[in-house]
Amino acid sequence: MHFTSENRLDDGVIERAFTLGEIPGILWTPASATTPTPLILIGHPPLGLSRMYPRLAGRARYYAAEYSFASATIELPGSGDRPRWPAVEQARADLRRAMEAGGPVGDEIVDALVLPLVEKAVPEWRTALDALLSLPEIDGPVGYEGGVISIGIRLAVVEPRIVAAGLFAGSLVPAAMFEEARQVTIPLQVLLQWDDEGNDRQAALDLFDAFATKEKTLHANMGGHTGVPQFELEPGARFFARHLR
Amino acid sequence: MHFTSENRLDDGVIERAFTLGEIPGILWTPASATTPTPLILIGHPPLGLSRMYPRLAGRARYYAAEYSFASATIELPGSGDRPRWPAVEQARADLRRAMEAGGPVGDEIVDALVLPLVEKAVPEWRTALDALLSLPEIDGPVGYEGGVISIGIRLAVVEPRIVAAGLFAGSLVPAAMFEEARQVTIPLQVLLQWDDEGNDRQAALDLFDAFATKEKTLHANMGGHTGVPQFELEPGARFFARHLR
Repeated sequence: MHFTSENRLDDGVIERAFTLGEIPGILWTPASATTPTPLILIGHPPLGLSRMYPRLAGRARYYAAEYSFASATIELPGSGDRPRWPAVEQARADLRRAMEAGGPVGDEIVDALVLPLVEKAVPEWRTALDALLSLPEIDGPVGYEGGVISIGIRLAVVEPRIVAAGLFAGSLVPAAMFEEARQVTIPLQVLLQWDDEGNDRQAALDLFDAFATKEKTLHANMGGHTGVPQFELEPGARFFARHLR
Repeated sequence: MHFTSENRLDDGVIERAFTLGEIPGILWTPASATTPTPLILIGHPPLGLSRMYPRLAGRARYYAAEYSFASATIELPGSGDRPRWPAVEQARADLRRAMEAGGPVGDEIVDALVLPLVEKAVPEWRTALDALLSLPEIDGPVGYEGGVISIGIRLAVVEPRIVAAGLFAGSLVPAAMFEEARQVTIPLQVLLQWDDEGNDRQAALDLFDAFATKEKTLHANMGGHTGVPQFELEPGARFFARHLR
């Protein structure tokens, strides 16, 4: 892990860019560290870190300033400045075409889009976690939050250091991931946008039902994919505070 | 409105019992009043105020101590020490029999159980609201929260002084109330217990969908009817704080 920049932001939060091999990432740590300092891994859709930055940094700075949590994110494979990934780009083009045609999105498109991303991204997140937890100022426990819910599901199943997850039920989920969801037993808080154009509401409710965990909460709000209300930031942080403190 | 007792509780909250004609009720006001003092009307199932008291008082005292809200509740017709109501008791016996038989609960049983209660209780809540808002220490705005969701729906439609409602999707809802739900436009936060034995989950989701209001949030948690997690108290209060302050 190699830090490439460090900024103290106006709320005192320290923002550091890093690289981990070829993978860029960002770490935010609170102005005044507490012990232990929980860590939130902030997931996001494969749109590139620079495009996602305002939303990710907004959440991370809130967590640091209000809850003294550290947060980190990494670039997904095939996104941003990382090497292009033709197979996934093809699947994305197929998805776009299917949605523009108004027809149902076939399972093979969803599988081709999501499963390779899960296979490749999850080990990267785990490697990042190794590096982050080796820093003296971060000791966990660890939560995962955000989008590409399938990545969150896989991480919840395979990574025992992740003890709670705040997931966004806003992306297409391969049938195979429903099976993995039945193995998830950590506490979950799931966000659902009730009128998400690209997302099947019933499938999202079925996925929520599928998780094996006993303490799971669904927060459904009106509006489309990008319309998650600002006021959900706070219960998201409180969920982590209950499980990471 | 006639006060029959007054207690200063150990958190400084003042609890007063009152009668309004034949209807008993309880008012909780914060130790240190703010201006304006919002008022939460705390609804409950028709099990009698004395049986419901611990849960109602717990919420009211939290609202008063943490948010400086006043809260009030009244006895439902046919419950507690109020005169018995044979028609509703008959409907309740019919419901119990239908549930014990494991069969579906017929629409006529639900209608007979809930619609007369709505017809009689809603004007009583409005009369109580008149009396409560005439007190110098309470000036609103007003929220309604709690069970018998059909009473909350009707109040949200007919009572313009109620500007936000926190509803519990835990009771049987007559088909006619789904139509009224389509007229509700005030902000809503709806609690749903995912494994509520006596309540149809899909019907509860359909009801949430039916509300016309733009700012509505669903909080679904695991467990049965009486298992609403303690941690939902705080987002309930925050919802009211957003809309009553």
